[in-house]
Amino acid sequence: MEFENYSPRIRAALRAAGVRAGDMAEVTKDGSTRRGIVLPRPLIGGDAGSIVIKLDNGYNIGIRWSPQVKIRRISGGRALEVFPSVSLEPKPGLPEISVVSTGGTIGSRVDYETGGVKWLMEPGQVFFMAPELQEMVSVRHVAVPFLVGSENMSAFHWKEIARSVAKELNSGVSGAVVTHGTDTMHYSSAAVSFMLRSLSKPVVFTGAQRSTDRGSSDASMNLLCAAIVAGRSPIAEVCLVMHGSMEDTHCLIHRGTRVRKMHTSRRDAFRSINELPMGRVWPDGRMQIDGTHAERSDSDVQLDAVFEEKVALLKFYPGMEPEIIDFLIDRGCRGILIEVTALGHVATDESQRNLLPHLTRAIEKGVVLAAASQTLYGRTDPWVYSEGRKVQDIGVIYCGDMLPETAYVKLGWVLGHNPDPEEARRMMLTNYAGEISAVSDPRAFLT
Amino acid sequence: MEFENYSPRIRAALRAAGVRAGDMAEVTKDGSTRRGIVLPRPLIGGDAGSIVIKLDNGYNIGIRWSPQVKIRRISGGRALEVFPSVSLEPKPGLPEISVVSTGGTIGSRVDYETGGVKWLMEPGQVFFMAPELQEMVSVRHVAVPFLVGSENMSAFHWKEIARSVAKELNSGVSGAVVTHGTDTMHYSSAAVSFMLRSLSKPVVFTGAQRSTDRGSSDASMNLLCAAIVAGRSPIAEVCLVMHGSMEDTHCLIHRGTRVRKMHTSRRDAFRSINELPMGRVWPDGRMQIDGTHAERSDSDVQLDAVFEEKVALLKFYPGMEPEIIDFLIDRGCRGILIEVTALGHVATDESQRNLLPHLTRAIEKGVVLAAASQTLYGRTDPWVYSEGRKVQDIGVIYCGDMLPETAYVKLGWVLGHNPDPEEARRMMLTNYAGEISAVSDPRAFLT
Repeated sequence: MEFENYSPRIRAALRAAGVRAGDMAEVTKDGSTRRGIVLPRPLIGGDAGSIVIKLDNGYNIGIRWSPQVKIRRISGGRALEVFPSVSLEPKPGLPEISVVSTGGTIGSRVDYETGGVKWLMEPGQVFFMAPELQEMVSVRHVAVPFLVGSENMSAFHWKEIARSVAKELNSGVSGAVVTHGTDTMHYSSAAVSFMLRSLSKPVVFTGAQRSTDRGSSDASMNLLCAAIVAGRSPIAEVCLVMHGSMEDTHCLIHRGTRVRKMHTSRRDAFRSINELPMGRVWPDGRMQIDGTHAERSDSDVQLDAVFEEKVALLKFYPGMEPEIIDFLIDRGCRGILIEVTALGHVATDESQRNLLPHLTRAIEKGVVLAAASQTLYGRTDPWVYSEGRKVQDIGVIYCGDMLPETAYVKLGWVLGHNPDPEEARRMMLTNYAGEISAVSDPRAFLT
Repeated sequence: MEFENYSPRIRAALRAAGVRAGDMAEVTKDGSTRRGIVLPRPLIGGDAGSIVIKLDNGYNIGIRWSPQVKIRRISGGRALEVFPSVSLEPKPGLPEISVVSTGGTIGSRVDYETGGVKWLMEPGQVFFMAPELQEMVSVRHVAVPFLVGSENMSAFHWKEIARSVAKELNSGVSGAVVTHGTDTMHYSSAAVSFMLRSLSKPVVFTGAQRSTDRGSSDASMNLLCAAIVAGRSPIAEVCLVMHGSMEDTHCLIHRGTRVRKMHTSRRDAFRSINELPMGRVWPDGRMQIDGTHAERSDSDVQLDAVFEEKVALLKFYPGMEPEIIDFLIDRGCRGILIEVTALGHVATDESQRNLLPHLTRAIEKGVVLAAASQTLYGRTDPWVYSEGRKVQDIGVIYCGDMLPETAYVKLGWVLGHNPDPEEARRMMLTNYAGEISAVSDPRAFLT
């Protein structure tokens, strides 16, 4: 069943040619012959009607099946038992970068024995998927603080990533790439944005929406574009580089605090919210930077990797039982980011589901409450309606145009400094990493 | 302080002319004279540098201040003590609609005495803002089940709206308009979508992002377009009609279960998610309907207004304490909609924050768990990664391309029928009102 995700016709043809997953084979179609390692079908959906082979140069290609396609086995079995690797020799004259590898789809491969996922442990394995990367940058070091899927990332991991990145940057490289699972990558990029102060070089998060063994994988182009931004861009900020379209044309450079995964599976799922992307990058090395970034400098990066884990993110909805706030207070929660409706509302009528008495009790107990909008786009504004003023009057901090996920991460980071409530408010409303601004660009809506 | 939101120069000019809010006055600029009721500044932000007057035809206009502007008071005080109203006489030959008015910005006005908000209680008041509506449809009846801002809407109100609409539709009108506050309008439109079975006529939710006393209010065009869809469209579904652009060009017709407020304040804040809008409507009566709707018929609408209020919506985030699930179980919660990351993940590692044991306990206690994606766009898919399969294996229902807000409302409605867990799963995955589909249109991403 190693080829179970291929169409029945392709399975039959591979069987007839005696080919197993991992074998070296030649595939001939329309007079053209390609030679490479036959891959099993990728983990993520995709086109069951194409044979996927990994070429010698590291690229995966899909060859659409037709009855005219000829398959010839060249050498046998287990070619992939050791995943291919490229050598990482310093290239004189190229900017040096470090890579911090944390897991996720981009840092994993199909295990051809079990069908499960294995981490790419060796640095050269990570780069085998993007061999031309070595013409753009010199990879000095690959740090692997841990390997975990993004669903299991937490404050512990954010602090470890920040620590690894700070160490790499202060060792003299031109920039750092962080490879990461995509599901919570925007929470992590926001966390590291706050934890690295006096940032003087690019820190570039990237990942893959499609597994590295898939013909249509976005892993190689994303990694390549991320490395270009880390090594060669003037951006001294934490950013996130992922596909900018459904095709392999270019990647977008998003600010790490202003980006969100907006689609479950598209390669261009990541989108800047409430601002335009910081720029674009093409896999041939070209960049278009829009000039809204902090500039590189020579200063050392300061690590400020603190996080109060007793914080919560609570999305308000019609019918919400306000006792959930008391539960969080009684568990010792020190801060709650409330995802309010639109401009900043929650239930405030006289019914049993009025949140105001419960929010008031939280503030009396010293819990810091902050509000960001579940519309994602736009900005909270407590002054428009009297119901918003009621919420602000009891002491809830309105986070303006900050994303809820970013505001949650920021709240944990702010409270990690043990501020008093007034200092917490001041910090929440201070712009540390481009996360909050007084004016939003209307062109940034749904783009 | 009745003009406190105007610029100091306009305040001075109004004072010099002896004009108070609600007075009838003439404003002359560039040789042109407009006559109307001088309005105080609107509740929502806006241009402090224009005088806003309500013309005899019901329209509000803003006249930009310059030193050349002349103001002359015509008749005194309290012209707005009784808010203007239009007569609602049946017009032979026009389709009849009913209006269910529930409150919100579209159903309120500034109280010129207190600066607060007053509800528009009289049917004619609601229509004074869109006088040309009476050339398109005949308004047979205005039902006011209650008046409440959308932040205080709850299942009680959803059931009352459904009941009022069903009664109106079964009394023989061509369709119904529901005016509603915008913040939670998409939760309400989803709820009413499920509560009205065998729907044979249009039910059209609409609201306003800018108050009715503002020159730039969207209330009149939204109401007009909603009435056109209710009276004259072939759509036998619950839909939501709001501005389709930042200008007053047209409105979009969204399916009531597929729409979400995506911006805090833009007039075109409402967007169809995972499908294209059902059509467009222009204020002159033109419609472009895209043919994906259920067609009108003669059958009576069946009311199925049930809702289990012991349901919760819980957004997962990195660092979430899983004990919140136990809290909900112990409060007697019968269903939880979890906003999972992307394809369908939550923390599943061996740490203290692993959600799986807590979700398992919930299911053992008979709690129905369902999952929708916090990316909003795309669809959950537990099969792609092993972590997703773990979540599905314990019995969590994956809601595909359903919006989280819609899936939460649907869960409450499904559980209102007291199904056993298998029946609850079957109902959650059954398409009742266009809320779930097997294939999404890629053109619908971020449009």
